[in-house]
Amino acid sequence: MPLPTPLPAPESLARALLLVAPSLDGGLVRELERIAGRGVEPLRDVPPPGDAPLLCVGDALPDALRTSRLLWFHSVNAGTDPLLAGGPWPASALLTRTAGRMGERIAQYVLGWMLAECQSVPEFIDRHARAHWERLPSELVVGQTALVYGTGRIGAAVGRLLQGCGVHTVGVARASRSGPAPGSARVVPGFDRVIGAAEDTGALGGARWVISTLPLTAATEGFFGAARFAAVRGATFVNVGRGATVDLGALETALREGRVRRAVLDVLPAEPAAPADPVWELPRTVITSHSSGITTDEDVLGDFTAAWESVAAGRRPELTVDVGRGY
Amino acid sequence: MPLPTPLPAPESLARALLLVAPSLDGGLVRELERIAGRGVEPLRDVPPPGDAPLLCVGDALPDALRTSRLLWFHSVNAGTDPLLAGGPWPASALLTRTAGRMGERIAQYVLGWMLAECQSVPEFIDRHARAHWERLPSELVVGQTALVYGTGRIGAAVGRLLQGCGVHTVGVARASRSGPAPGSARVVPGFDRVIGAAEDTGALGGARWVISTLPLTAATEGFFGAARFAAVRGATFVNVGRGATVDLGALETALREGRVRRAVLDVLPAEPAAPADPVWELPRTVITSHSSGITTDEDVLGDFTAAWESVAAGRRPELTVDVGRGY
Repeated sequence: MPLPTPLPAPESLARALLLVAPSLDGGLVRELERIAGRGVEPLRDVPPPGDAPLLCVGDALPDALRTSRLLWFHSVNAGTDPLLAGGPWPASALLTRTAGRMGERIAQYVLGWMLAECQSVPEFIDRHARAHWERLPSELVVGQTALVYGTGRIGAAVGRLLQGCGVHTVGVARASRSGPAPGSARVVPGFDRVIGAAEDTGALGGARWVISTLPLTAATEGFFGAARFAAVRGATFVNVGRGATVDLGALETALREGRVRRAVLDVLPAEPAAPADPVWELPRTVITSHSSGITTDEDVLGDFTAAWESVAAGRRPELTVDVGRGY
Repeated sequence: MPLPTPLPAPESLARALLLVAPSLDGGLVRELERIAGRGVEPLRDVPPPGDAPLLCVGDALPDALRTSRLLWFHSVNAGTDPLLAGGPWPASALLTRTAGRMGERIAQYVLGWMLAECQSVPEFIDRHARAHWERLPSELVVGQTALVYGTGRIGAAVGRLLQGCGVHTVGVARASRSGPAPGSARVVPGFDRVIGAAEDTGALGGARWVISTLPLTAATEGFFGAARFAAVRGATFVNVGRGATVDLGALETALREGRVRRAVLDVLPAEPAAPADPVWELPRTVITSHSSGITTDEDVLGDFTAAWESVAAGRRPELTVDVGRGY
């Protein structure tokens, strides 16, 4: 187990250059300057001259900056797998991320698509376009079971919202983060119960909804493959985690065989999907172009400010990424 | 104020013929026979011979049965305005209705269409059909205000579900049913506060959602007219009450002027809408064919059974319709 990254030393932070991705909005950049008490320079693929430590805010880290000069990188996104996959992370560099109101956003996305299915929203849009009056039955989510993969911030936010609508929520913890092992009487807010990923077969069979919030790590690549989909009995699959956690061929088979009722995919193994990508032809599937958890400038600013205040107080920011674990 | 309808006398109920609408499902009919302890006859537009009192279960009352022989009519629907509009109600006849899980159903319908708009469900369906990857922003309902007209069973169920999603709920009580007058500190479950219908102008301007659950009575016909819509400032209008409470011309003007953002109409003044009906052409509107609160056989059976047990015990059924008030 690697030691946690040390916090930036106050004297290093005081000397650091603030590099900001050129894509960030001007208003946000001015606020970042105000908080850090210095002007910004653009985050580019050549390092600035000198040996001053670097504090970067952006979505990608050029190779040339992946050095011991990197003091701290604040990601404007919640998922940091593209940053970590780009090359070895400098051992002394702190990595923090933006979560913002992402939990709420993704939870509302998940509930919105569940209710859209239960309330026949796409079918009514179609009937309306044809000026065709037709009563369609609805399905109540009250009392149905949702299996939510990932019991972190996002998964718990999904679980809490669904519980409020009377849905029975079962969390699937990929790894025990702390506290008792999965399978024991572990109480996690948002979930009626939590099971381990190795004991999910029965739960998959009883679920009306299978929802993944899993991050992409070496351990989750292809996590939803033929074996897991074979255990599904008519659930709709919703992926708001990472696309590469799903074996799309196995999903297609499960959709064609009717084991998976529908699929709502916010994420894909390769994004964006080109118009000719066969993924658009998956049966009973909708793809939503990685929109479920878009972070806003307000989110970035709020989480950077909180991280700055933590570091200034000598505390580890709550949104520090465990580089070894990958999220 | 007319006196409340007397409960059916036990000796009358014992002698009553059980007439059931021929449209009801055979399984449901057998259960009704079991509960009432007698066989059924079809509910038709000629009265059965003899002078036995009549206990009817159905959705419409033929004129020929609108007599003092009618002891009790149990409506398989929640809204009884078509029954009451068909002619004078026999003074001695009890009228009960089916509510079932209608509150839950309608609440999920309302939330489903709210989230469908906030999550761009129709837009994503369209993009998917064109194999077009495009990120679309979402809108969070947390912290938004919903004005819910009607604070009875249905309105309260809507309010409760929306509160669980962080929506600020304001109930609009058309008339004070009991307790303090509207405007005073009246606590109604499901609502952060309750106002009277005469004081809704400001609230209409501050609402993101205007939701009507109003029944149709002489007092609510055309209730949503030019004056009310003129006070709306960008809210989406959702009608799960009765169609004739809305002046469609006034709604169309408000939609064209952008004061009403979108409309979701489950009900219309004239149903069903024919394909040539101009209502299908209202801008930014979807019509859902009176589907939000479909009652199931299970609902009818449950509410008839409860009403039967109440009458047998000499208590007024909870789902008794106040014929004078109209709901």
